[in-house]
Amino acid sequence: MQTPAFQRARSVEHKQQRRDEMLAAARDLAAAHGVRAVTMTDIANEVGVHKSGVLRYFETREAVFLELLTEGWTEWMDACVPAIYQANGNPAKVAKAIAGTLAKRPLFCDLLAHAPMNLERGVSVEAVREFKASAFRQIDRFERAVTTALPKLTKADARALISAANAFASTLWQISHPTAAVAELYRTDPHLAHAVVDFAPSLRRQTETTILGLLTRRQNG
Amino acid sequence: MQTPAFQRARSVEHKQQRRDEMLAAARDLAAAHGVRAVTMTDIANEVGVHKSGVLRYFETREAVFLELLTEGWTEWMDACVPAIYQANGNPAKVAKAIAGTLAKRPLFCDLLAHAPMNLERGVSVEAVREFKASAFRQIDRFERAVTTALPKLTKADARALISAANAFASTLWQISHPTAAVAELYRTDPHLAHAVVDFAPSLRRQTETTILGLLTRRQNG
Repeated sequence: MQTPAFQRARSVEHKQQRRDEMLAAARDLAAAHGVRAVTMTDIANEVGVHKSGVLRYFETREAVFLELLTEGWTEWMDACVPAIYQANGNPAKVAKAIAGTLAKRPLFCDLLAHAPMNLERGVSVEAVREFKASAFRQIDRFERAVTTALPKLTKADARALISAANAFASTLWQISHPTAAVAELYRTDPHLAHAVVDFAPSLRRQTETTILGLLTRRQNG
Repeated sequence: MQTPAFQRARSVEHKQQRRDEMLAAARDLAAAHGVRAVTMTDIANEVGVHKSGVLRYFETREAVFLELLTEGWTEWMDACVPAIYQANGNPAKVAKAIAGTLAKRPLFCDLLAHAPMNLERGVSVEAVREFKASAFRQIDRFERAVTTALPKLTKADARALISAANAFASTLWQISHPTAAVAELYRTDPHLAHAVVDFAPSLRRQTETTILGLLTRRQNG
């Protein structure tokens, strides 16, 4: 918990600063404890204001996390798109570019799983519209990069690829980050050895399989 | 809401009957409103007992839904495994067998998304152990069927396939079932037309892509 430099932000500049502090607090708390566990009260305590102070900036906790997810999409593509271009048309390297940049962003992977189930249900329709419009602009960047790097793939293929990669990232992240008690169970019960999933290599392999499948479908006409 | 035939179950038979009524109530409520929305109080009201009566049988709402997911795994494989054998080694038909039997089980697809994120975190470690052991027996049936129907695929491939199919089913189900307000937004905003996902055909196509990718990887050695 911090002691804020001012109790209530009144200038535009202070308001922006307070908002950024709240987003940073949510980011830190979610990275440490998982998105699921973080409440508005946690965020308020971390910033050093009352919960009502957070509610002045964000309608719900879901609005906070949807904003982090929006910024996460842009930030992911800023890393992923150049990596795809550098893959020189090699399918395995394109898979590595996508999966590798996702695996370096655990909070983004956690947020992806929460988006349709929780985040989009806990905000206004207007907030969903803004989030979707922003995410689609990033998906457009992905489509251009993939269809340039692997010219046999269509825009629809690139969209299927990002949908699959997001599905793998969000589900594999949750599966590979169980509670401490469940993780201990997996380590100690020989019948449950299969339950241990190694996040980054599984994500990369599943993404590569999808690219190979899409290329095979195009080759078969 | 029903009026129960007896207020408190005392015989083994009545206890089993009461337990089955609670599971049936949870199943109906989740099918109608989504797993996310159903509380222990809703289940109690539906059965016609006090919430404490439900807590006598299930430690948490997550325990109720983990039991429905356990039964869902067996029930899915009872349909999926024969369909895989009937696919006669045709990859597209194997994909149809897997995706088609999943798409007919919307509650199971909804539950899959909740399992690692919510259900496994809201029950005892012993309950997680029982759930995992049961699910793994069903995954074994899937592996045998897939490696028999498509002999080029290994057991590890079959496991990657069911992991991918589950990832697609759970994420595509959530994405294709937004709130009424968000569904209306997707229909009316031309920029968001891409947000509309048709669940069954998308699931089938993604599953087929995964099978083609796994076969291509084996062919390439």
